[in-house]
Amino acid sequence: MEKITINTRGFRSEILVGERWEAVSGLLPEKNTVIITDDNVSQLYGNRFPKVPVFSLAPGEGSKKLGVIEYLAGKLLKAGIDRSGFVLAVGGGVICDVTGFLASVYMRGIRCGYVSSTLLSQVDASTGGKNGVNLGGTKNMLGTIRQPEFVICDPAMLLTLPEQEYLSGLAELIKTAIIGDKELFDLIERSFDKIMLRNSDLLTLLVAKSVRFKGLIVSNDEMETGLRRILNFGHTFGHAVEMQKGVKHGFAVASGMELSTEFSFERRYISVDEKERISKLLKRFKLVEKLDLTDDQMEKLVLHDKKKTGSDIHFVFTRGIGKAIVEKVPVGEVLGFYKRFRDKK
Amino acid sequence: MEKITINTRGFRSEILVGERWEAVSGLLPEKNTVIITDDNVSQLYGNRFPKVPVFSLAPGEGSKKLGVIEYLAGKLLKAGIDRSGFVLAVGGGVICDVTGFLASVYMRGIRCGYVSSTLLSQVDASTGGKNGVNLGGTKNMLGTIRQPEFVICDPAMLLTLPEQEYLSGLAELIKTAIIGDKELFDLIERSFDKIMLRNSDLLTLLVAKSVRFKGLIVSNDEMETGLRRILNFGHTFGHAVEMQKGVKHGFAVASGMELSTEFSFERRYISVDEKERISKLLKRFKLVEKLDLTDDQMEKLVLHDKKKTGSDIHFVFTRGIGKAIVEKVPVGEVLGFYKRFRDKK
Repeated sequence: MEKITINTRGFRSEILVGERWEAVSGLLPEKNTVIITDDNVSQLYGNRFPKVPVFSLAPGEGSKKLGVIEYLAGKLLKAGIDRSGFVLAVGGGVICDVTGFLASVYMRGIRCGYVSSTLLSQVDASTGGKNGVNLGGTKNMLGTIRQPEFVICDPAMLLTLPEQEYLSGLAELIKTAIIGDKELFDLIERSFDKIMLRNSDLLTLLVAKSVRFKGLIVSNDEMETGLRRILNFGHTFGHAVEMQKGVKHGFAVASGMELSTEFSFERRYISVDEKERISKLLKRFKLVEKLDLTDDQMEKLVLHDKKKTGSDIHFVFTRGIGKAIVEKVPVGEVLGFYKRFRDKK
Repeated sequence: MEKITINTRGFRSEILVGERWEAVSGLLPEKNTVIITDDNVSQLYGNRFPKVPVFSLAPGEGSKKLGVIEYLAGKLLKAGIDRSGFVLAVGGGVICDVTGFLASVYMRGIRCGYVSSTLLSQVDASTGGKNGVNLGGTKNMLGTIRQPEFVICDPAMLLTLPEQEYLSGLAELIKTAIIGDKELFDLIERSFDKIMLRNSDLLTLLVAKSVRFKGLIVSNDEMETGLRRILNFGHTFGHAVEMQKGVKHGFAVASGMELSTEFSFERRYISVDEKERISKLLKRFKLVEKLDLTDDQMEKLVLHDKKKTGSDIHFVFTRGIGKAIVEKVPVGEVLGFYKRFRDKK
């Protein structure tokens, strides 16, 4: 088990990678605690949950909405949860996002922690404190940034994940490798079989590497005023793909990374070899979606992107495997690249 | 004009007391800004608003709900407000509460400022960063604590307030005096006529004193883990009265202060003279409501109070005019006092 600490504004968050999820019992207050989960997770693990009230949501992105926050707040109130209360999320990104947001606004903020049950949330969503819900068609439009007290990442929970869900998480792992950890990239490249077999020791190692990198970034720039922006690699195009095509986050981000890698290559930030290596790895895990968004669709979605400020976008480029930079790029240039890319196809 | 600075976690908030509200134009970004107000305020001042999109809500507590946050977020999105955007509230407590909450969750937080148009919001709601919406019958159940960049408190705006609205603000001013500023209490006592005439110089002085005191508290304990709790004087009973009887906040708090003063007297924290002095001042401004909540109603409402942690309440007592203390009191004791108080009547 590896314990990674994230310190932000005097607050300490501990990510426990390789810990058994059942150990969460020892981390919870005895009273005044509730669990938020989804129907899939509670079917698999519910019988071993700590004995506190459990509120289970419908699985999937549809639960990430403000109405669900209101519904849950009402449940907490009825359960007698007060300012000293604790909310535990057991689930993937959606459950952690909803729970984190709820905990940060319920009575102006109560304690929370996560048991992170998917690879995507272990390597990404659960570390860093970003939470939120969607607004109509726009992702994570309402939310806060607030660290949970702990996150448990148990590799054994990943064995029950559907294949697509597992691969979706792998995309974010590859993202971390591209933007900040060449060693991790090499390791993923040469461990294809073990990764597909979901070897627990290897997963603990991969997740720990990813969390350690992200933790370092978040400790230095929790509120995303600079450095943290590199974590958005592949996300400008990725969010557009996700909202338009309704594919899983990781697959959308993989497509976004493919595009951003092309864009980086067009600007000569990377060599053709590096471009091929990234592209090949994404394709080997069957992560890249067919890109059939029209220019108009892309424009509309990019204009609503949170990474936009004024008429510019903070766009993340790779400058070689393990290295990324953020540049303010006029929206028109980003869309121009997309048009050229589409025309070439 | 007096400028009072509140520093919290590296963030600076400036309260401009006695400033003309029209000066707000000089504090806003040129683009990417919207105004949130209510129909009453926009009718009075709308023709002099800076030329940016304006979203006007129905006046009153009914607009403090999550549905309104969702509605406004949609409007901001349509207006093209991105992460670098700015939301200006022009209005009283409800408008500042809604705007502050919206700004703290829209795209995980954008900039905001307030033009505070009521006495209540000038002395209380707009300083300190608490915001939020109600949940069903429970006040401020969802919200955050986040300072606006500035608050303008213009005494000229108070001239257009309905009498009851004005007096409601006066109650919070008296609260500040009781818990922290004996000089302010003396000043209010001897300025009855000028206060009723809404003399601008006097109001600037009174509001500045109140804001300075609150600013000092909030700078030291933004998240209300200790000291800040004294600001809740009169609020445990007050919130119950407010929710049950639907009276204006200040009147409810005044009734709560009357009760808390009695409770403080029962515990011999204050003398009979001090009790009478407080009671007389509240009555002179006709602030105290007839208390006809049954014991059961009070119990139900107190149990949902945010100041409750576990089976205790952080109850605020006065220990003489200008001084307050917070004690953890079992809920049963608080309700027991209320029962005795009711039986005596």
